[in-house]
Amino acid sequence: MERQDRQDRGVGALSTTAALIETDALIIGAGPVGLFQAFQLGLLEISCHLVDALPRAGGQCVALYGDKPIYDIPGTPVTTGRGLADSLLQQIAPFKPQFHFAEQVATLDRQDDGRLLLGTSRGSSFLCKTVFIAAGVGAFVPRRIAVDGIERLEGSRLFYHPDALERFAGQSVIVHGGDDAALEAALALASLAKTVTLLHRRDVFQAEDATIAAVRERIAAGTIRLQVGQPAGFDDTQLQVATPDAQTVSLPFDALIACLGISPRLGPIADWGLALERKQVPVDTEKYETRERGIFAVGDINTYPGKKKLIVCGFHEATLAAWGAAAVVFPGKSIPLQYTTTSTRLHALLGVAHGPGA
Amino acid sequence: MERQDRQDRGVGALSTTAALIETDALIIGAGPVGLFQAFQLGLLEISCHLVDALPRAGGQCVALYGDKPIYDIPGTPVTTGRGLADSLLQQIAPFKPQFHFAEQVATLDRQDDGRLLLGTSRGSSFLCKTVFIAAGVGAFVPRRIAVDGIERLEGSRLFYHPDALERFAGQSVIVHGGDDAALEAALALASLAKTVTLLHRRDVFQAEDATIAAVRERIAAGTIRLQVGQPAGFDDTQLQVATPDAQTVSLPFDALIACLGISPRLGPIADWGLALERKQVPVDTEKYETRERGIFAVGDINTYPGKKKLIVCGFHEATLAAWGAAAVVFPGKSIPLQYTTTSTRLHALLGVAHGPGA
Repeated sequence: MERQDRQDRGVGALSTTAALIETDALIIGAGPVGLFQAFQLGLLEISCHLVDALPRAGGQCVALYGDKPIYDIPGTPVTTGRGLADSLLQQIAPFKPQFHFAEQVATLDRQDDGRLLLGTSRGSSFLCKTVFIAAGVGAFVPRRIAVDGIERLEGSRLFYHPDALERFAGQSVIVHGGDDAALEAALALASLAKTVTLLHRRDVFQAEDATIAAVRERIAAGTIRLQVGQPAGFDDTQLQVATPDAQTVSLPFDALIACLGISPRLGPIADWGLALERKQVPVDTEKYETRERGIFAVGDINTYPGKKKLIVCGFHEATLAAWGAAAVVFPGKSIPLQYTTTSTRLHALLGVAHGPGA
Repeated sequence: MERQDRQDRGVGALSTTAALIETDALIIGAGPVGLFQAFQLGLLEISCHLVDALPRAGGQCVALYGDKPIYDIPGTPVTTGRGLADSLLQQIAPFKPQFHFAEQVATLDRQDDGRLLLGTSRGSSFLCKTVFIAAGVGAFVPRRIAVDGIERLEGSRLFYHPDALERFAGQSVIVHGGDDAALEAALALASLAKTVTLLHRRDVFQAEDATIAAVRERIAAGTIRLQVGQPAGFDDTQLQVATPDAQTVSLPFDALIACLGISPRLGPIADWGLALERKQVPVDTEKYETRERGIFAVGDINTYPGKKKLIVCGFHEATLAAWGAAAVVFPGKSIPLQYTTTSTRLHALLGVAHGPGA
């Protein structure tokens, strides 16, 4: 459990800011369904915060197919993952949702008053009346190096998919990986670091032709050193690498940058007593509520008879879940369905003005 | 039943073409949900026809709020009823759905082979494996004049919301109604017909100020005659009108144009044995199927626990209903869920080409 938790903390060092944020609703996951969840909550005047493990909104839509076409969003003949996320961000802007990026929800506890207390990997705490799990196939976290104890180096000498490389100036850096992200990091560091070693399990790269050609040029020129092999152990100054011919090579390093891809992890949600079925959270189809009162699950993470993992279905689920939440947030209050076309109240919430003739 | 059927036939004369159209799916209603139903069927390679009582696609979205804003279509921060219909028409264009407008489905019968035979107000017949009722609050049909037997004049001397007015040139025309449609028809006829009488139950109109002013001017000039009252009877040449002071006035007429508004009528769907609850069709939430195998109901016309009459919900219902239909149309065939982002098969169906690197 301890090790699992540490691994789920995501990129970077653990901060221990002790913020306690009270909110009607916490949305876990800022993919398209999480974003639309914020919209539907906004229409019902339910305040919300969103937490996402990724550094930006859009979820796998942006992380995995940002520039790829999507044809099945109703009323949008074609868009891209990024285009969809941008449209949804524009749509929810009137509600000013508050985002907490690069942060993972780790713990969930029911309070005596029925509210839910959630803690994140960065030490934030949320006290909320309702929770929306819109976590898709899980939090997108960097694939880790499989060497016992190496997580101790995270944030000091080991960095997964770092955003900026300036801090490595003048250092002896090992870049581990063979895809575009790894090669681009090695290229950028070639003119910045003291030495750059590109460590990959074989002498073949999976990247754009031009990027590979540029790296091969630097290898030929000696400004990037290529080491074929896999990390096998480490000490204070060196990384031990197992080579394909069963040798062990020691590489001195100040920093180890690992770009082994981003993969989804369900993470601590699995431990919340939601009776998961094959990593999916069972919900009803009336409110898309889990078996825990006030905890809803929408989008790819939930399951029910007939479930299809399609964004269009998540939008519906988020809509009915918002109504389910309204019953928790405003107990005993009867809320009529209003239409954005005609309701002056919704127009005020959306910040759009229409004259009487509109 | 006979009278009801006649009233449900909609505008215009009854044609008796005896076409029998075989199709995998018939969609009743070409509003936004019916249109998206065609899209989801298309992705599953299920052929379909659409029938709508209105003369064009878009349903109440176009008929009632064509120019009004809609803010809650996911990924579309703002559109209009007409804009949404146009986007959906563009989205489904690759599947070349076949439309049958100004036509109402009247009869439905199960055949021995399990297929469904549907007959329309214009005498078309559809033999299909599946039916999708996407009829919203019902077929939008003109509100009728409540005078016994007057339906006999429909198409010869009585016209509800006629599309074109040229045929009334040189005639003595009564225009019945007090809204924009009625006043605009009277204005247009003032320079076209022999005489124009505007018949309305009171001397107050519900229309744009400028339109009312223009009509008042014509009344003052004598080119439009105003008659306050309600139709009470008719003979071959005259309409009897009951006036507010309990008199009866006889108005000679060649043509009576009635613009009393468009109101939804559930029509014959109520007689199909679908166990309606308060004019809604109960469905499951796995396939949005009615209690009749192969007959699905989607959008505002259906009901299930948690139902909200929102377009976004209809889109989801249409999606799962299409999958429900696939089990009927392709029995025993296992169909994997494919994504429009990555599936080359779906790209071929959508008529979009992507290179291997796309």
